[in-house]
Amino acid sequence: MAVKYVYFFGDGKAEGTGAMRNQLGGKGANLAEMTSIGLPVPAGFTITTEVCNEFYKNDRNYPDGLKEQVAEQLQAMEKLMDKKFGDSEQPLLVSVRSGSRASMPGMMDTVLNLGLNDQTVQGIIKQSGDERFAYDSYRRFIQMYANVVKGLDGELLEDILENMKEDRGVEEDTALSAADLKELVGLFKNKYNEELGEVFPRDPQEQLWGAIGAVFGSWMNQRAITYRRLNSIPSEWGTAVNIQSMVFGNMGDDCATGVAFTRNPSTGENLFFGEFLINAQGEDVVAGIRTPQPINKAGGDGTLPSMEEVMPQSYNELMEIQQKLEKHYRDIQDIEFTIEKGRLFMLQTRNGKRTAKAAVKIAVDMVNEGLITEKEAVLRVAPEQLDQLLHPSLDPNAPKDVIAKGLPASPGAAAGEVVFSADEAEAANKLGLKVILVRVETSPEDIHGMHAAQGILTARGGMTSHAAVVARGMGKCCVSGCGEIKINYKTQQFTDRNGDVHNKGDIITLDGSSGEVMRGTIATVKPELTGDFGILMGWVDGFRRLKVRTNADSPEDAAVARSFGAEGIGLCRTEHMFFDANRIMAVREMILAADLEGRQLALAKIIDMQRADFLGLFREMKGLPVTIRLLDPPLHEFLPHGDKDIADLAQSMGVTVDTLKHKVEFLHEFNPMLGHRGCRLGITFPEVYDMQVRAIMEAACQLVKEEGFDIVPEIMIPLISEVKELEILRANAVAVADEVIAEYAVKVEYLVGTMIELPRAALTADKIAEQAEFFSFGTNDLTQTTYGLSRDDAGKFLPFYVEKEIFPEDPFVAIDQDGVGVLVQMGCEKGRQTRPDIKLGICGEHGGEASSVIFCHKIGLDYVSCSPYRVPIARLAAAHAVLLEELAE
Amino acid sequence: MAVKYVYFFGDGKAEGTGAMRNQLGGKGANLAEMTSIGLPVPAGFTITTEVCNEFYKNDRNYPDGLKEQVAEQLQAMEKLMDKKFGDSEQPLLVSVRSGSRASMPGMMDTVLNLGLNDQTVQGIIKQSGDERFAYDSYRRFIQMYANVVKGLDGELLEDILENMKEDRGVEEDTALSAADLKELVGLFKNKYNEELGEVFPRDPQEQLWGAIGAVFGSWMNQRAITYRRLNSIPSEWGTAVNIQSMVFGNMGDDCATGVAFTRNPSTGENLFFGEFLINAQGEDVVAGIRTPQPINKAGGDGTLPSMEEVMPQSYNELMEIQQKLEKHYRDIQDIEFTIEKGRLFMLQTRNGKRTAKAAVKIAVDMVNEGLITEKEAVLRVAPEQLDQLLHPSLDPNAPKDVIAKGLPASPGAAAGEVVFSADEAEAANKLGLKVILVRVETSPEDIHGMHAAQGILTARGGMTSHAAVVARGMGKCCVSGCGEIKINYKTQQFTDRNGDVHNKGDIITLDGSSGEVMRGTIATVKPELTGDFGILMGWVDGFRRLKVRTNADSPEDAAVARSFGAEGIGLCRTEHMFFDANRIMAVREMILAADLEGRQLALAKIIDMQRADFLGLFREMKGLPVTIRLLDPPLHEFLPHGDKDIADLAQSMGVTVDTLKHKVEFLHEFNPMLGHRGCRLGITFPEVYDMQVRAIMEAACQLVKEEGFDIVPEIMIPLISEVKELEILRANAVAVADEVIAEYAVKVEYLVGTMIELPRAALTADKIAEQAEFFSFGTNDLTQTTYGLSRDDAGKFLPFYVEKEIFPEDPFVAIDQDGVGVLVQMGCEKGRQTRPDIKLGICGEHGGEASSVIFCHKIGLDYVSCSPYRVPIARLAAAHAVLLEELAE
Repeated sequence: MAVKYVYFFGDGKAEGTGAMRNQLGGKGANLAEMTSIGLPVPAGFTITTEVCNEFYKNDRNYPDGLKEQVAEQLQAMEKLMDKKFGDSEQPLLVSVRSGSRASMPGMMDTVLNLGLNDQTVQGIIKQSGDERFAYDSYRRFIQMYANVVKGLDGELLEDILENMKEDRGVEEDTALSAADLKELVGLFKNKYNEELGEVFPRDPQEQLWGAIGAVFGSWMNQRAITYRRLNSIPSEWGTAVNIQSMVFGNMGDDCATGVAFTRNPSTGENLFFGEFLINAQGEDVVAGIRTPQPINKAGGDGTLPSMEEVMPQSYNELMEIQQKLEKHYRDIQDIEFTIEKGRLFMLQTRNGKRTAKAAVKIAVDMVNEGLITEKEAVLRVAPEQLDQLLHPSLDPNAPKDVIAKGLPASPGAAAGEVVFSADEAEAANKLGLKVILVRVETSPEDIHGMHAAQGILTARGGMTSHAAVVARGMGKCCVSGCGEIKINYKTQQFTDRNGDVHNKGDIITLDGSSGEVMRGTIATVKPELTGDFGILMGWVDGFRRLKVRTNADSPEDAAVARSFGAEGIGLCRTEHMFFDANRIMAVREMILAADLEGRQLALAKIIDMQRADFLGLFREMKGLPVTIRLLDPPLHEFLPHGDKDIADLAQSMGVTVDTLKHKVEFLHEFNPMLGHRGCRLGITFPEVYDMQVRAIMEAACQLVKEEGFDIVPEIMIPLISEVKELEILRANAVAVADEVIAEYAVKVEYLVGTMIELPRAALTADKIAEQAEFFSFGTNDLTQTTYGLSRDDAGKFLPFYVEKEIFPEDPFVAIDQDGVGVLVQMGCEKGRQTRPDIKLGICGEHGGEASSVIFCHKIGLDYVSCSPYRVPIARLAAAHAVLLEELAE
Repeated sequence: MAVKYVYFFGDGKAEGTGAMRNQLGGKGANLAEMTSIGLPVPAGFTITTEVCNEFYKNDRNYPDGLKEQVAEQLQAMEKLMDKKFGDSEQPLLVSVRSGSRASMPGMMDTVLNLGLNDQTVQGIIKQSGDERFAYDSYRRFIQMYANVVKGLDGELLEDILENMKEDRGVEEDTALSAADLKELVGLFKNKYNEELGEVFPRDPQEQLWGAIGAVFGSWMNQRAITYRRLNSIPSEWGTAVNIQSMVFGNMGDDCATGVAFTRNPSTGENLFFGEFLINAQGEDVVAGIRTPQPINKAGGDGTLPSMEEVMPQSYNELMEIQQKLEKHYRDIQDIEFTIEKGRLFMLQTRNGKRTAKAAVKIAVDMVNEGLITEKEAVLRVAPEQLDQLLHPSLDPNAPKDVIAKGLPASPGAAAGEVVFSADEAEAANKLGLKVILVRVETSPEDIHGMHAAQGILTARGGMTSHAAVVARGMGKCCVSGCGEIKINYKTQQFTDRNGDVHNKGDIITLDGSSGEVMRGTIATVKPELTGDFGILMGWVDGFRRLKVRTNADSPEDAAVARSFGAEGIGLCRTEHMFFDANRIMAVREMILAADLEGRQLALAKIIDMQRADFLGLFREMKGLPVTIRLLDPPLHEFLPHGDKDIADLAQSMGVTVDTLKHKVEFLHEFNPMLGHRGCRLGITFPEVYDMQVRAIMEAACQLVKEEGFDIVPEIMIPLISEVKELEILRANAVAVADEVIAEYAVKVEYLVGTMIELPRAALTADKIAEQAEFFSFGTNDLTQTTYGLSRDDAGKFLPFYVEKEIFPEDPFVAIDQDGVGVLVQMGCEKGRQTRPDIKLGICGEHGGEASSVIFCHKIGLDYVSCSPYRVPIARLAAAHAVLLEELAE
């Protein structure tokens, strides 16, 4: 038997199925599936991807038998549609489209109305009774064919059209008459001849094979080749070609076209929902020139008649179809349909895009309706989508006047009056005003103002700048590094990207999810964690294996995170406690002390505050695990930099300004990220870590002794590159901890572990594990060092890299599995090799990003830790990881 | 048969051999070897390391039979020395020393004169006829025993001695009489009793076993355990104990002691060379209280009589011995001897330390003498030693007054008048003055002054600061990052670490190999590349497999490197060409241009200069391979920072100071090392790389076409982290290169490759190799990112880390084989996996460090590249790599 190269679909029967993507491409498989479940799909056929491969194997010749098979299927189409290809009475017109296994830009797109020539156009006139429509279709076909199939510059024919409009004194294409369009057809054909040195093909068969050849040819054009290479798509996949009967929604008032969703994609409500236009083409619905009418009474506001009312029969038919579709696809469907002279045709169905809110509701509803399982429901909600639900967000329908754009440093939306200092923010807040704190950059002194503000806007600093990190911790909206604004503190003004001036007290709105800054107040939508959300997350927690902890530095953060389901603290950054306005003075004294004695005096002031911090955290977490990282950032981050601040500090410390300046200068670093920080501080100033360990253990012992808590503090030492560092610091920590335990005379267990955040730590993790009871992968820093890429400085080129797909994704957002991920995996394997029961987690920002969480699951981490507002995202992603694994089995 | 625990040596016979280090320890094996080749070694025996292990296995009990074996060997000693342990007439005194396989601080050291008590001291008086000597020996024994064996605080007995001296009104120990010393012995014994609650052991047997027990006990003391852990010495190695007869060079005028070298260790001249003292102890020769006499007439200046003259018989005996020793050990020997009453004893022989110059001469001479092979000769010279030969160095005998210490940024030594600006340096140089340029840090504007100066001293900046890198390239002495000095440009002064002020015009000397800054002029020694050096390097080149290239940015550097044997340029840093004072303006215009057009205008000015650079380099290298790295550093490195410089530039560019300042500020980076640099510049400003590639290829094509050169330029793209970067930049480079080749209508081949200097590049080297014809490992940056350690900032803690052995070595000096090396090896393997013939090299500073070169050989690199002055070191190390491999086979 001859090889089957062509698959027919039409009249409720299809030779292919939805499962045959490899042979039929995505589009062909979809058309076959829709047809075979009984939908009225315009008949057609698909030429398989195999033909594409044969074509290239045989020096661009078609395999034997193809022409015959196409001819045969074309006849079947004609019969079914009761039209004839090339006929001047009842002409069959077709569309020709490419369709590969994966959607692929760079391929030939679409040729519509193929089959038109000077004879068949007469048939269209007769059928439609509309000469203008017929010639408009004809001239469009010539344009598409010339451009898409023959590669003629689109401008050449467009110019002729523009000239004619000028000549006739009209602005719109629609103002041209049937005669004009007929003339245009002639002019187009002449130009075609002139440019390509050949006559525009009259024979529909020649047109058809021209288009088919163009589809196959486009598989090997440069854009497609580049796209495949960049996306690792093998060229052996090939493309299919789809040929389908044209149907028209614009052939009269018994014609229409529309789009609809089987449920409301915005709210999730189970109500058929859509719009349609009478006597119109698909594009008209989208273009917004005419106002579409609602599909049913329930979906309209009564001003325009619905399809339910004006075309009741078609509406009923469509209702049945949409119910059938949802049952078949078991998900909300986004459908396109056309009614040609009273006959309903389905053009497209696909899973509908939906808001996070709708996604959750639909998933839960469908479980209740018995349509899907709980596991399927969980997989129906994209983890990243949840972010929408957890922060206030801009009303998507509100108009906005964007005046600048910075980095989306902390999600959410906020509006308020502009203020330029933390003190003003606090004062205004006490008066009940909502403010946005606008600073060149923020520093520890600004914390109270950040608390008081609705949102923070900075001109400088990246995604890990002080403003960004603190704001994310607070769950507060922040746009950072917005270089487009220029701030003048003196005049209390900033200018935006257009040069417009904004004064103190003017109102702006920030979108921390897009980085946009807008004029005035834009309405925001509050997060609503509905009952459906709770139900879904219950299922989620039943499926996942990974634990989800949070990064939290204060009892307040911890409380938010627990309300989002955090199962512990994976990273408490003690330095954020140091930044507190009440204690920064003591911290500075400690740093600037001339000797050990001076440092110890200052540390004695700090220890009571630190102990109180840990008491608060431990109480909030009620026995859940808490990992506390000892001091990490370079010391100069805590120092004042302005002349006045330095003078103040000098006075309060009783030293000269010069001495202080010299010290500040001495602490300056060229590359602080790679400088004197992390455990290197612990090695050179052991008394600082000793103080911190003492504070941690005193807090734990006190709670165990006096309040009956059950706590196992996890002491984490940052930035280890060599096991000997950890050996020394672990010994110091154990000495202090055991001393405290002896003082309190209680039994308290504790763990000492480390961050794996430098390539060398991952490479030597087997040795490091000898000294560590747990590893926490600090993938922020690990990404910075693995790529040699400072997150604070990458703003100048990283967006360009992502846009140009040099990096498939921002590696600070989704973990880079080929590089950073290899090190993480190596760290896990080597760690477990030495210490099989070592506790493994991740505390970089990746811990709250879905693809990264799935990666963490795959390589067998015990937990991920992320900022409080991302905890639900991580929980959901962790469940996806398990369910996707089950599906793959 | 009972296990043999004790090995005897004496009278030309030894039970052990030099090969038995594992059982006898280093010292024991050495004593056995000396004895068995017939040297007159004081008789003794060694208790094996096995006993140490048994001791700890059996709860600190000695194995059966040990006591008997010791007793037996002691008798043999007595017989041989004709003395008796504990005898009051002819008492035998012994020394007890530990001796493990590896030399190990923390272990018990030495007890001398063991066997003395109130009876035996009488025998010594009789033997020596010197009561004072006898009691002095006795009191020293008590002191040593109390301190070393019993752990008594040395101060306690020393205080008694001091009190007595005060009481007697004398300053020196030697002024105490025999009676005083006798009294002291009594006082010491009382104090011993008082402190330790036991009587000082009278019985020599008890003394002996006390000392043996102390040696074994010291194996498990904390210092020894720590040392072993840090140096990976297994505790199972154990220690041996050596017991040896005492001999005295201070028992009269027929006694003497001395040290000698079989050749001159400073010049290498083949002449027996040494010093001795009559009636003296070994320490006296070293202590320098008495002036030693020369060992022979040839070695003296005639003022003091030589041993050859005053003790001709012993001298002749010693001559024979030293000849025998050299023949036996086949290397220059450093020997210690003692003559007791006319009888010569050899106490020690070991391979002699020698200067680089001597090492080369001795190695070549010994080949000529037929003593060693060429391969052995090559292995006799330590690669790092050669550095001494290649730079002027401080006269090691000159006194020096160190006023500050910074980083040893560029080796060599230089003296000159202090100047504080590049212009002054140049002016002074024109007047024929020698100057040292002293700056807080240097910048491109200072290059002419650096050329003019003898050496450069900076207060800020690390080993890769501008000053350091440029100075090394020039082969010029530099001390950088010398934070101990404070510079005041206004007053034209700097203060040193003592607070002393140095004015402009004062003379200082720099030692670029130690980082020391000294007051005044210290004599320096010029490098002399003798004929022997050439001969040795000829052998070296015959043995090595690794090629050695140089890092050179100018024809001058290249010429120096070729004279040192460089076989190509492995790294030409084009940015150093940008720093040139004549073109920095154009470079700045390029950087600060508002748009592409502006950049291209500025680039058009630069291209002629760059082409000339490459013409010069290619001509100098005469067809040897030249790897040119495209622009690498962040752009702001080229910008002016002072207000005046900015104002000047603004004027010359015709823009406002504010505009310029804003741009400079915009280019500021938090972590420039991880910022917008390397290939990221090439991606965002392709026109810069295009200009450079054009300049390279135009130079190459011109030389091929007009001067018949045979050149294959190697275009190197820096800082690749992802293959797509290289894919784009390679395509750009190929396009420009092919265009130039077509313009010149010549056939020129070229390679495009990349640096592997980021962990991610090493991790994904298989993919990167698809786009690279060569890899050059940039281990400077790779070390920085793998460790998360900025070389410029590490000064605050890295020295501490190295001192405390947290890092076994500075990883910027010797490649870290456990971390960075793993990535380099991975890069090689993955690179070759994709492209088996890929060219692999290294161009970090490690390329000139011996252990790193050996590592590069092991992992199969094709070449190393280093700064010109280290080329001979790399050549020698490369030969060592081959020869050490042969030895290991």
